[in-house]
Amino acid sequence: MPKISKRAQNMPASPVRKLVPYAIQAKQKGIKVYHLNIGQPDIETPQTALDAVKNNHLKIYEYALSEGNLEYREALQDYYHRLGFTDLTTKDFIVTNGGSEALNFAISTLCDDGDEVIIPEPYYANYNGFAHTFNVNVVAVPSSIDTGFALPPMEEFEKKITEKTRAIIICNPGNPTGYLYTREELEKLAQIALKHDIVIISDEVYREYVYDGKHQISMLEFNELKDHCIIIDSESKRYSMCGARIGFMITRSKKIHDAAMLFAQARLSPVLLGQIAAAAAHQNDTEYILKVREEYTKRRNLLVDLLNGIPGVICPKPKGAFYCGVELPIDDSDKFAQWLLESYSHNGETIMVAPMSGFYSNPELGKKQVRIAYVLKEDDLRRSAELLQDALKKYKEEFNL
Amino acid sequence: MPKISKRAQNMPASPVRKLVPYAIQAKQKGIKVYHLNIGQPDIETPQTALDAVKNNHLKIYEYALSEGNLEYREALQDYYHRLGFTDLTTKDFIVTNGGSEALNFAISTLCDDGDEVIIPEPYYANYNGFAHTFNVNVVAVPSSIDTGFALPPMEEFEKKITEKTRAIIICNPGNPTGYLYTREELEKLAQIALKHDIVIISDEVYREYVYDGKHQISMLEFNELKDHCIIIDSESKRYSMCGARIGFMITRSKKIHDAAMLFAQARLSPVLLGQIAAAAAHQNDTEYILKVREEYTKRRNLLVDLLNGIPGVICPKPKGAFYCGVELPIDDSDKFAQWLLESYSHNGETIMVAPMSGFYSNPELGKKQVRIAYVLKEDDLRRSAELLQDALKKYKEEFNL
Ligand SMILES: Cc1ncc(COP(=O)(O)O)c(C=O)c1O
Ligand SMILES: Cc1ncc(COP(=O)(O)O)c(C=O)c1O
Repeated sequence: MPKISKRAQNMPASPVRKLVPYAIQAKQKGIKVYHLNIGQPDIETPQTALDAVKNNHLKIYEYALSEGNLEYREALQDYYHRLGFTDLTTKDFIVTNGGSEALNFAISTLCDDGDEVIIPEPYYANYNGFAHTFNVNVVAVPSSIDTGFALPPMEEFEKKITEKTRAIIICNPGNPTGYLYTREELEKLAQIALKHDIVIISDEVYREYVYDGKHQISMLEFNELKDHCIIIDSESKRYSMCGARIGFMITRSKKIHDAAMLFAQARLSPVLLGQIAAAAAHQNDTEYILKVREEYTKRRNLLVDLLNGIPGVICPKPKGAFYCGVELPIDDSDKFAQWLLESYSHNGETIMVAPMSGFYSNPELGKKQVRIAYVLKEDDLRRSAELLQDALKKYKEEFNL
Repeated sequence: MPKISKRAQNMPASPVRKLVPYAIQAKQKGIKVYHLNIGQPDIETPQTALDAVKNNHLKIYEYALSEGNLEYREALQDYYHRLGFTDLTTKDFIVTNGGSEALNFAISTLCDDGDEVIIPEPYYANYNGFAHTFNVNVVAVPSSIDTGFALPPMEEFEKKITEKTRAIIICNPGNPTGYLYTREELEKLAQIALKHDIVIISDEVYREYVYDGKHQISMLEFNELKDHCIIIDSESKRYSMCGARIGFMITRSKKIHDAAMLFAQARLSPVLLGQIAAAAAHQNDTEYILKVREEYTKRRNLLVDLLNGIPGVICPKPKGAFYCGVELPIDDSDKFAQWLLESYSHNGETIMVAPMSGFYSNPELGKKQVRIAYVLKEDDLRRSAELLQDALKKYKEEFNL
């Protein structure tokens, strides 16, 4: 048998996706599964985007420019100008197949084998996957559910910097914690990056979904980071168009841009139809975004209250994105999540959650935690919380906890 | 300034794409550019595909399954069953963002840093780019324009095998040479792969476009390669839907499949709309493929005759795909290709060609060669050949060749 690369052997299985076969089995048994496990909203894609695709007059789906077609990069430029970053031009964007590919480009552009990236944990699990793809080591800065996932003083980041550190990856607002960085924290990070000549990779794909009247502060505000910053953005969550596979990276550094373009050119082109959909979505989206934000606010408030009402469950209130990191009175969240799909159902229904072991550099830290996405309608969230409460009871009984 | 990875520093600039800024400048000067440089056909995408996209009833563009949605994998299964590979099931396919991503997955699944892949040259230049992305070394098996790019005896491949060899990549029919492998050659390659326990990565994205009544023989015919074969396929060229970004890899090896899935899961999902377009295109495509093949045959015949009629130009007749590897009476094809865009025009028109230096491990070998794609209408090809003849004359005068 031919060898599989060490790279592949060391790849972490996605904590969410490894449960998929069990979900498929459950569905084959006729069980309805509430998907709390993945950031796939049930919110409709903007009608402007759907219409743009349906009404397109293309006769040939041609390759787009490797950096993305100009029309779409103009829409992005306009959007960022409205956010206040009026110095950005179409040349600062590289359009990618989802934020995922932008993360891949960022890491491969900055890191060689054995290099390190610093990431506050719990983190979006695929950061770990993309790092492993390039044999890059993730160095975690821990935050704990006990303090509502508040970050430690930014100096803790600095302590982790070594000769091999190439970047700090932050997610703002954060998946899976909903954490929202303060201006002071971002300023401190900017100082650290400049002092040590490393890059901040700032994943801002949930920018629009921040609650309680608060606002996200983009890393782009720090002009002094011109050469030391890559923004990761995506239309997946903003416009509930995850399957369109449109994301992008932004950098004001010509050096980083030109290097990343080499990877973009090798894979020829980002997807064409998704650019058409996303460009249309960016037109007059104020109302859409407001409505969706309101909807997520309601869902969050409902879910957090319901979860904290279940005995033994701890759920800090997230400030942004659409996930909660939740502590459960269980022994092992991987086992529990699988059990929910394999062995549990109530009136023909069950829930799927994301075990948080894969969101930590040390899986033990997430052993009692799951991530729950509030991407479902309020009624479905209500029913899901009921199912969780019932399941926890039965699970405890079954395993004598 | 932060460091760029060695990986990025060593990435070869795409020989085609690095000319793009000059093409843009030419167009800004009002010059019409005939694009002979890239495999972007002017053939229309099948109406079935365009209609499926225009008539879709989706309200949400959701993530597809990481391995591709079942409906599309069923269409692929049917297509491969019609090709005679009736043992393949939907589980053997992993849908990717273009054949490009499939190549990325194949290399990252098999190769670690410093490993080697053997590729007959001249090769599709991005093989080199994908290999570099993972610090994998390309070991070339040379073929020469003097023998019409005929491959050396397959034993030459075996001679290049070392402890570090993980795979042999073939492109059949070939870009840029149009080479079509014989059954004997493929058999020999299969034997070599088994003997040395390495994998054949067989890029068959041009399968449908083979001329003169000949047929492509897929590496899938060699059942004994079950654990030693990855097929790269794509809808880009088959259906002239390059911008849809739909390709896939096929392997009967569960071990390779499962390892590749880890990379597929990390990037979440291949593009959704492209799967809808491609699944529709696969329905009743016989007539479409026949018509397009006929069109390419006419174009090839015309172009090869015209090119060989230009003094000092040598153009072997390709058996498949839609490219010619062409030798020109010039000093440096990179310089010439740039000069065509920067300094040349005739009646407000010029041509863009792909210098072949980047298609060889040793760029010197391609110094007098360009790749010309016959993806344009016959009239455009006629005018392009005229322009080439005129340009060669002026170039010689200007540089005293
Ligand atoms: C924090 C974060 N970044 C990036 C992504 C990538 O998403 P996509 O590739 O769909 O843009 C996700 C998806 O869940 C995410 O949660
Ligand atoms: C030989 C070969 N393989 C793969 C590809 C990748 O194409 P895509 O990513 O559009 O499927 C190309 C594109 O030109 C090609 O020529």
